[in-house]
Amino acid sequence: MDEVRVDGDRLLGRLAALAEVGAIEGGGCSRLALTDDDKAGRDLVVSWMRDLGLTVRIDTIGNVVARWGDDGPPAVMTGSHIDTVRSGGRYDGNLGVLAGLEVIESLIGAGATPARPIEVAFFTNEEGSRFSPDMMGSLTYAGGMAVETALDVVGIDGARVGDELARIGYVGTHPCPGQAPHAYVELHIEQGPVLEAEHVDIGVVEGVQGISWQEVSIEGQANHGGTTPMSMRHDAGYAAAAVSHFVRQLATEFGPPQVGTVGSMQFRPDLVNVVAARAKLTVDLRNTDDAVLHDTEAHLAAFLNELGDAEGVRITTRQLARFEPVEFDERMVSLVEATAKRQGHTTKRMPSGAGHDAQMLARVCPSGMVFVPSVKGISHNPGEYTKPDDLVAGANVLLEVVRELADAAEVPA
Amino acid sequence: MDEVRVDGDRLLGRLAALAEVGAIEGGGCSRLALTDDDKAGRDLVVSWMRDLGLTVRIDTIGNVVARWGDDGPPAVMTGSHIDTVRSGGRYDGNLGVLAGLEVIESLIGAGATPARPIEVAFFTNEEGSRFSPDMMGSLTYAGGMAVETALDVVGIDGARVGDELARIGYVGTHPCPGQAPHAYVELHIEQGPVLEAEHVDIGVVEGVQGISWQEVSIEGQANHGGTTPMSMRHDAGYAAAAVSHFVRQLATEFGPPQVGTVGSMQFRPDLVNVVAARAKLTVDLRNTDDAVLHDTEAHLAAFLNELGDAEGVRITTRQLARFEPVEFDERMVSLVEATAKRQGHTTKRMPSGAGHDAQMLARVCPSGMVFVPSVKGISHNPGEYTKPDDLVAGANVLLEVVRELADAAEVPA
Repeated sequence: MDEVRVDGDRLLGRLAALAEVGAIEGGGCSRLALTDDDKAGRDLVVSWMRDLGLTVRIDTIGNVVARWGDDGPPAVMTGSHIDTVRSGGRYDGNLGVLAGLEVIESLIGAGATPARPIEVAFFTNEEGSRFSPDMMGSLTYAGGMAVETALDVVGIDGARVGDELARIGYVGTHPCPGQAPHAYVELHIEQGPVLEAEHVDIGVVEGVQGISWQEVSIEGQANHGGTTPMSMRHDAGYAAAAVSHFVRQLATEFGPPQVGTVGSMQFRPDLVNVVAARAKLTVDLRNTDDAVLHDTEAHLAAFLNELGDAEGVRITTRQLARFEPVEFDERMVSLVEATAKRQGHTTKRMPSGAGHDAQMLARVCPSGMVFVPSVKGISHNPGEYTKPDDLVAGANVLLEVVRELADAAEVPA
Repeated sequence: MDEVRVDGDRLLGRLAALAEVGAIEGGGCSRLALTDDDKAGRDLVVSWMRDLGLTVRIDTIGNVVARWGDDGPPAVMTGSHIDTVRSGGRYDGNLGVLAGLEVIESLIGAGATPARPIEVAFFTNEEGSRFSPDMMGSLTYAGGMAVETALDVVGIDGARVGDELARIGYVGTHPCPGQAPHAYVELHIEQGPVLEAEHVDIGVVEGVQGISWQEVSIEGQANHGGTTPMSMRHDAGYAAAAVSHFVRQLATEFGPPQVGTVGSMQFRPDLVNVVAARAKLTVDLRNTDDAVLHDTEAHLAAFLNELGDAEGVRITTRQLARFEPVEFDERMVSLVEATAKRQGHTTKRMPSGAGHDAQMLARVCPSGMVFVPSVKGISHNPGEYTKPDDLVAGANVLLEVVRELADAAEVPA
């Protein structure tokens, strides 16, 4: 039994069928966590799991894990999530879950008899669009958050996680934290433009960037834009623009993989002829090296101090999020890379700029990820697209990695 | 009859009484042009005009002119406006009108017999907050806009100037353009911080800055702020910030009286972790020298071109307003200056950064303005404030200037 390949049409068919649930204009999906649409998506995927004869378990935070194989040694786990942002695409998360299912169905069809059980999971509320934090289910599974805390989170619409979970019938009995897998591997779309731009088939994910989000509030003084000399202004709007300018310089000077984004900015009173009294903006800094990320944060803080003094404006910051970078187990990274190359693909080792369930599983077992290209890097958008050949290629890499992990006593070094 | 001075308490009393009409929290006024509140303000001021026995005429655009004296040689006119921005102060415009009324009442009380009639006017819709353009009444009075065109203007609330004017009972019979005065002089608060900061009593206005307003629209590409390398971004938000940064540099390098303001800025989708797809901002450039103003506009246009190329974003601009600078008649400027000095005041020759009715009257007669200090330069805000002593001092300068103009055959050279 050498060559086992996924059934591409079956995988694409399931992706299309799941995309019908909560479908929105432009080909995307809206299945915010624990809504009726999320329930409908869950029910569909669980029905497919049961159709395959898998043992489905649901835990106390609503994570769903389907197992192929008897209790025995710790399982090889794959998976991702099926919740989406409010107007999301059809591949983000869904690909990892349905490719995992496809891997199992293909191995069953080929008569494979892996030494370890194989599990495919979907984790609750990965996106964090309705309930904070994101990656809630996998974080709780890995013991990073108490399940009681997670259940008590209240969302943007005032609903409580525990109540919504009960409402849609997904309060399970299996404990959280869950059993640590032998290893975890997740297939995901890149959600960035690098693979497509560099004509690379498969991204070999080395880790997940650390994330620092800050909100910067600036208080200046409203003044008439015609009558106030430049030297007498305390222009919150100019100061906000200067921060954006600085963040670009900072990211450019530090060089890849450092990125920096000022994605949100508001002025008050926001009028053509009035020097802005107040401005609010966000700064998103990311790096794979936590020491460097701290360094960029310190540079920004120093700049904000100087800017406040120079402009006579009051600048305050509030941390919105801070995640340390995650480094995947080198054995997992090598295995993904070697497998993709053996299947004839070009590969690129890269960090993930976005957060993923795999970074939470990395707390409890060797973990890794496979990326496939996103056309134009578009994601969190109905226009999200990955070519069918790339979807299938990623699923075949996943299949081989899972198979090797399930057959060996140890993660291959 | 040498020393005639205004009755300060009477002037302050009328300012306070008019401020009761359309009063808003914080001591300000909301009397948008041609609303019920504007009508109530008009009715009150007209009642004061009639109480003084003045001849009140209303023209076809609703400007109100009250005359003291028989028909004869062209009158010396003073005045301003009584409409306000949505949340304005109690001095902007109102001071000029009520000080004009006070000048006439004081001269009547002192038994003065000027050689020329003296008129005090308030012009329709100076602010332009409800109907564009601003200074509509004085522009029409001076022949710069056809009255039919002005009457057909539709405001931000869908109402038509002509209909609203009829509704509040201020469609007059006197023709527009109106009779050119012998000279026009207007007292106004500075609306800027210069006089207070330099401890000067009276601003001698040499002219009004030219104004260039543009809306700049930038189209980039939305991308994930974590997964998109800096080099692959087309960040509309960064480009917008770079424009603000450039406008500051431009104004600083050109030096006073050049000013430049980016007072309004919006990002889309305006999210912490998404590179902005679109941004919109405004640029307000002003200078007293039209050639220099054109030069700054050209520098900005060149920068926008370079920026669009460098960032791979599409930048378009739309002109929102363009007024050439106005230079007041040097005889009027000297008269205001000499009068203020004679009354023991410190003076400063300065441009007006804001537009005023006087710049429209300057098209048809020698015109000038007197500024009094605005505390902290605050205006178009309920917190607008000028000290009572300064209000009265300005009214006394106005009185003497009006009196000299009304007694001499020619504007003194």
